[in-house]
Amino acid sequence: MSLSNSITSLPEIDQIMDQSMQSFLAYKKVSAIERAAFLERIAFEIEALGEELIKTTKEETNLPEARLLGERGRTTMQLRMFASMLLEGSWVEASIDHAIPDKVPAKPDIRKMLVPVGPVVVFGASNFPYAYSTAGGDTASALASGCSVVVKAHPAHLRTSTLIAAAIEKAIDFCKMPKHCFQHVTGTSFEIGKALVQQSNTSAVGFTGSFTGGRALYDYASVRNKPIPVFSEMGSTNPVLLLQDALLQNAETIATQYAGSITLGVGQFCTNPGLIIGIQSVGLNRFKATLSNAINQVAPAKMLHVGILKAYETKLSKVLANAGVTPLTNEIAFDADIASPMIVHVQGIDFLKDENLKEEVFGPYAIIVECTDMDELKAVWNSVSGQLTTSIMGSDKDFEANPELIELATQIAGRVLLNGVPTGVEVCASMVHGGPYPATTDSRFTAVGLNAVKRWVRPVCYQNCPDHLLPEALKETNPFKIKRMIDGNPYQ
Amino acid sequence: MSLSNSITSLPEIDQIMDQSMQSFLAYKKVSAIERAAFLERIAFEIEALGEELIKTTKEETNLPEARLLGERGRTTMQLRMFASMLLEGSWVEASIDHAIPDKVPAKPDIRKMLVPVGPVVVFGASNFPYAYSTAGGDTASALASGCSVVVKAHPAHLRTSTLIAAAIEKAIDFCKMPKHCFQHVTGTSFEIGKALVQQSNTSAVGFTGSFTGGRALYDYASVRNKPIPVFSEMGSTNPVLLLQDALLQNAETIATQYAGSITLGVGQFCTNPGLIIGIQSVGLNRFKATLSNAINQVAPAKMLHVGILKAYETKLSKVLANAGVTPLTNEIAFDADIASPMIVHVQGIDFLKDENLKEEVFGPYAIIVECTDMDELKAVWNSVSGQLTTSIMGSDKDFEANPELIELATQIAGRVLLNGVPTGVEVCASMVHGGPYPATTDSRFTAVGLNAVKRWVRPVCYQNCPDHLLPEALKETNPFKIKRMIDGNPYQ
Repeated sequence: MSLSNSITSLPEIDQIMDQSMQSFLAYKKVSAIERAAFLERIAFEIEALGEELIKTTKEETNLPEARLLGERGRTTMQLRMFASMLLEGSWVEASIDHAIPDKVPAKPDIRKMLVPVGPVVVFGASNFPYAYSTAGGDTASALASGCSVVVKAHPAHLRTSTLIAAAIEKAIDFCKMPKHCFQHVTGTSFEIGKALVQQSNTSAVGFTGSFTGGRALYDYASVRNKPIPVFSEMGSTNPVLLLQDALLQNAETIATQYAGSITLGVGQFCTNPGLIIGIQSVGLNRFKATLSNAINQVAPAKMLHVGILKAYETKLSKVLANAGVTPLTNEIAFDADIASPMIVHVQGIDFLKDENLKEEVFGPYAIIVECTDMDELKAVWNSVSGQLTTSIMGSDKDFEANPELIELATQIAGRVLLNGVPTGVEVCASMVHGGPYPATTDSRFTAVGLNAVKRWVRPVCYQNCPDHLLPEALKETNPFKIKRMIDGNPYQ
Repeated sequence: MSLSNSITSLPEIDQIMDQSMQSFLAYKKVSAIERAAFLERIAFEIEALGEELIKTTKEETNLPEARLLGERGRTTMQLRMFASMLLEGSWVEASIDHAIPDKVPAKPDIRKMLVPVGPVVVFGASNFPYAYSTAGGDTASALASGCSVVVKAHPAHLRTSTLIAAAIEKAIDFCKMPKHCFQHVTGTSFEIGKALVQQSNTSAVGFTGSFTGGRALYDYASVRNKPIPVFSEMGSTNPVLLLQDALLQNAETIATQYAGSITLGVGQFCTNPGLIIGIQSVGLNRFKATLSNAINQVAPAKMLHVGILKAYETKLSKVLANAGVTPLTNEIAFDADIASPMIVHVQGIDFLKDENLKEEVFGPYAIIVECTDMDELKAVWNSVSGQLTTSIMGSDKDFEANPELIELATQIAGRVLLNGVPTGVEVCASMVHGGPYPATTDSRFTAVGLNAVKRWVRPVCYQNCPDHLLPEALKETNPFKIKRMIDGNPYQ
């Protein structure tokens, strides 16, 4: 039997999640070294899919080959990063407090480490058919942690997802992993997602996509008899502040940089800078002119699928319905099958009054909010909800004049950028791809980078456990030579 | 105006939480050293309350003086532990990835650390009027993290709570902290708790108490427009396995040890061992005999308040309604105003059929479940929901014969004890006082020990931020000399 199942009835979900739980109980005991080899093998098998994979995804997503090659590289890199993390070992946060028998009362020997939570259900994103889908960051981090994974294939790239699932299945066979440590389910019914989240064996959920979808899964999980954590990453408008001196010095350079970021990948990134805030000035006028010109040079392009194009146009229409909103770029043909980029302009006072303008418009779009002064700029910035990123374009002089801005930025977003564009999320230990709601459903975690694994683990401590019965990470001799906290002293 | 407010109307809650948010924005900027001094000062002011505090709490809780002195010591120790943590500094999980400009695409400089989430609402426990109440572990860890705190006083020790709040207020004045970084609200209406959780400024909730209360707060938080994390610690039956060889060798010693643990503090601990599972044998009979005799020697005692006594008796009646349940200890006078300890006995097969028997009976009580063999013992163990602790009493021979038990134990509980009693929760870096639902609402965190702070913080990363604008913990020179992750290498 294949690990890829087309679901047609809800009882099948019980069977799949029961298998996932049984497999989890075996997989969690697989050594870190073997799990690392398994992740490496998944990367190898994905690469071995070769041209067929790229060709299939190109057909399904309209994404160009160069982008897909890059994203495939990112995906295999993530798998290898988690493999390295497993081999290095400190991620389990091992901590040892030795017994103090003559303390009153006697202090027992206590040792703590992180263990996997259980079967994880992953809902991938349509805009990253590799890196945030079937073998993407959620799956890679969950498999690294020792959790079993059930991926609900994204219907917009079903054939791609099935190819990747087959690659993982090959890796399972090759590495002799517990058969159902990864399963792949397909099916378009809305009820399937709900049933997967609410099945009793499901222990955590990872989701990347729309606000509506992410919030729905969160709600399904919260009303369970046994609630489970849901990490939904739901996108963002990624506000950008343009400060006065920076504009005076570099309006054209900044505009060109942002024209690229806004239209990169037809604007289909959750870190797309969709909200640009500045103070009325000559510099801002120069920025607007250069940005509009640059955007008008960008050719319209196909979006991932027709549903996303329609959503883009619907959202644009809502924005344009505001009498204070003026397009700064060429008129758009709304009946086309390709998406034209668009920049619009509004005064701060009008922006503050219209909730529609604060919503993410997923696509090659940005709204420039022109404020009368720094107070209004801050009011506009603070009026938007939690964000994945916020960026500040400022000179040394700007930051000297406004020293509070970086601190304010940390209140708004999980990632604060200075003098850069938010598109392009580096995969590394320090990355935070998360942020206050509604950017995510739990600001305490990240979906990208090493710490993504922390979503799927919980601490367990062992009290008075003989050394030979302890897990390797907690044995006195520290056989893996990992950094540990010893008697409250970090990282000995 | 005092920081202690008796709430009589819901608009007052808006005012209190608005003040908390304003204060948070100032308090989060207070340096770690000053926050540490503040926590130390709170400890000092609590000690300075002297006899009056102990006398008041004795009157309100029926807890004996020795216990209260010990608990006060634990409370001030926790405050000082978090102060030390702040001075040491590594808890912010600083991580630096240096730029690699000649990488394609160029890798930017990215630096990450933990920051406080916002105003935290704390609901303390009745059974720990100091250590898990007004200035207890939740408040101490939240203040340490940089969050402001609003404590809803427990009505069962209102005067104690008010005294402690006044001590914190003195510390605020002495240390010149933002005035409303701590606030204390009193009021008995159920609606107050709900409104505190649902007020828009509330960013996280800590709760210690009953399942009903903890789940209700979780549900209130989940249906908010902007959901927030709730860490509810809701108690446990703390299953204990008695293995064959250990009983054969030490039945009487183990029984005596457990008689003490079951009746300690009139059984009013969330780690009270309320479920003891063994296999029918001469050893188990010896254990039952010794335990019953020892328990019969324990004098009845007053519980914390009459509501807890009534709940104890109601739960006992439900247990005794099962025809398979036999009391092993003296008959109880249910109309008394003091609680008698009780041990009951049931066969595994009967236990498995009755959900009432699996519920926590908060008080000096345990049920001994006698199983026919190891398979039934495991079935009984697995039939109970997530637990704070599970204990295994076993000899080397027992663990050799059943090597899978410790692994299974980590599935059930946050703390796994070998050959000890679960009462007595050491406050240290390695402690896990948490566990799968319904022990808590999020198994990924602990309420006790250094890591309790992790409930109130979220990661933020800074991309391409000039060194002089970075927080101290992330500056290149590492002015605090904390352990950090550098370019993916842990704890340099």
